[in-house]
Amino acid sequence: MMDTVAVNGEVRRLEELRLQDFLQSFFFGAGFFETFLVTEGTPMFLERHLARLRSSLGAHAGCVRAPPEDVLTAGSVREALHRCLEADASLGPRFTGVGKLVAGDGRLLLSFRALPAPHAHTVLDELEDRGYRRNDPTLRHKSVSYLRQYAHFGRGTVFANEAGELCEAPNGNLFFLLGDAVVTPPLEAPCLPGVIRAVLLEEGRLGDMPVVERTVERAQLEEVRGCVLTNSVSLALAVPRLLGRELPGSHALAERARAVVREYARREE
Amino acid sequence: MMDTVAVNGEVRRLEELRLQDFLQSFFFGAGFFETFLVTEGTPMFLERHLARLRSSLGAHAGCVRAPPEDVLTAGSVREALHRCLEADASLGPRFTGVGKLVAGDGRLLLSFRALPAPHAHTVLDELEDRGYRRNDPTLRHKSVSYLRQYAHFGRGTVFANEAGELCEAPNGNLFFLLGDAVVTPPLEAPCLPGVIRAVLLEEGRLGDMPVVERTVERAQLEEVRGCVLTNSVSLALAVPRLLGRELPGSHALAERARAVVREYARREE
Repeated sequence: MMDTVAVNGEVRRLEELRLQDFLQSFFFGAGFFETFLVTEGTPMFLERHLARLRSSLGAHAGCVRAPPEDVLTAGSVREALHRCLEADASLGPRFTGVGKLVAGDGRLLLSFRALPAPHAHTVLDELEDRGYRRNDPTLRHKSVSYLRQYAHFGRGTVFANEAGELCEAPNGNLFFLLGDAVVTPPLEAPCLPGVIRAVLLEEGRLGDMPVVERTVERAQLEEVRGCVLTNSVSLALAVPRLLGRELPGSHALAERARAVVREYARREE
Repeated sequence: MMDTVAVNGEVRRLEELRLQDFLQSFFFGAGFFETFLVTEGTPMFLERHLARLRSSLGAHAGCVRAPPEDVLTAGSVREALHRCLEADASLGPRFTGVGKLVAGDGRLLLSFRALPAPHAHTVLDELEDRGYRRNDPTLRHKSVSYLRQYAHFGRGTVFANEAGELCEAPNGNLFFLLGDAVVTPPLEAPCLPGVIRAVLLEEGRLGDMPVVERTVERAQLEEVRGCVLTNSVSLALAVPRLLGRELPGSHALAERARAVVREYARREE
């Protein structure tokens, strides 16, 4: 993580921040976060990330202290971001990397880190089917109460609910090439309302296939011909092996998904 | 919260602690906590709280950075606690209140707060049956990924799983007077392995009734004649109304439970 951050728009050094100003997030996981790509100084889909953050804060108004409204706007975050990049020579105005927002304790913390090592695919061979519950409202929010997902980072996990329906990966949403469509589980599975997921659903097509929300049962795995993991940093990763099945078709699908996402991002800038 | 804390046994001022030393807990909820009663300088059931903390850390060795082993012993925590009480005139060696331990980021943070306003009972009239999943392994650990519970503080909530089985309250375990026994849900419900819960199960009797672990279905509510909520600060609270049912028998049950717990605590000091 980089040394320069912003708190409610004010540029600070990470080392200056006091734990006591973030106690509700620290003690109770009472905060929400967003992670997004920054390319040559430009944050990707910032409006969408802030909309999700505001939505989660709104749904938890009684227990999570939201930052002031005026720091939760795209204009305000863009300004804070540019001030950080200019203030820190190791970042610089053309910084490319990852931005992170954490909202809680009445504060919006903006921080930066380097891009992860590039990789175009990820193998998902581990099924975790003991924790997710259909319609669980808490798993639709990206809160810092994130241990359930964090404990599975790097382990190639797919979460399934009590009905044997596939939900998501710890670090992203899943899209399956299934029959004549590209299918992603509904939010009720549950899964996070991912920003890249929403973009692909809005576009509605990948090549000649429709992109739809639909329940995907574990038993349907045998019919899956491709799989893609989406998140706001990697955009779309091929899943060439899913729970023991080889899926070479995933690479082309992921490439097409990345192209759609990049085109959307250009339009929204 | 009080100004004086200890980090890995060293007495510090809360305001000196830097967020950057607790980032894994803050960003990902990757830490565990314990809350316990301190009476005239003596922590209650400290060995049991530390055993639970070590157990959760052991189960998450790959993703939560445990504090050094030597600071996780009862002797070490007692010493740190006494140094804090002596260092701060507003606490003092005869301090009565609440102690809290948070373990994560390679650190053990000990902090203090005042006792909550005394109340001997709590009404539980709200059923939340959309989130808990039978056998979910994450809900058996008291992690700082606590938003699921925290969001229901003060709302009189009882959590139930997908099979309609009662699990726990956001702030404690539940015991039901049901048939000829006092029944508490099994850990698989799931529920936290509460310290007071364990003491009551070890004692095995409340008055002339056996205390047992057994599944309690929502449909059995009509037969419940009393209910008690247990946690390490209030010990045992009567639940004189449970999901619409008046349970005057809860007061005597809670009083008996408190007596058992205090007797155990005396023996273990």
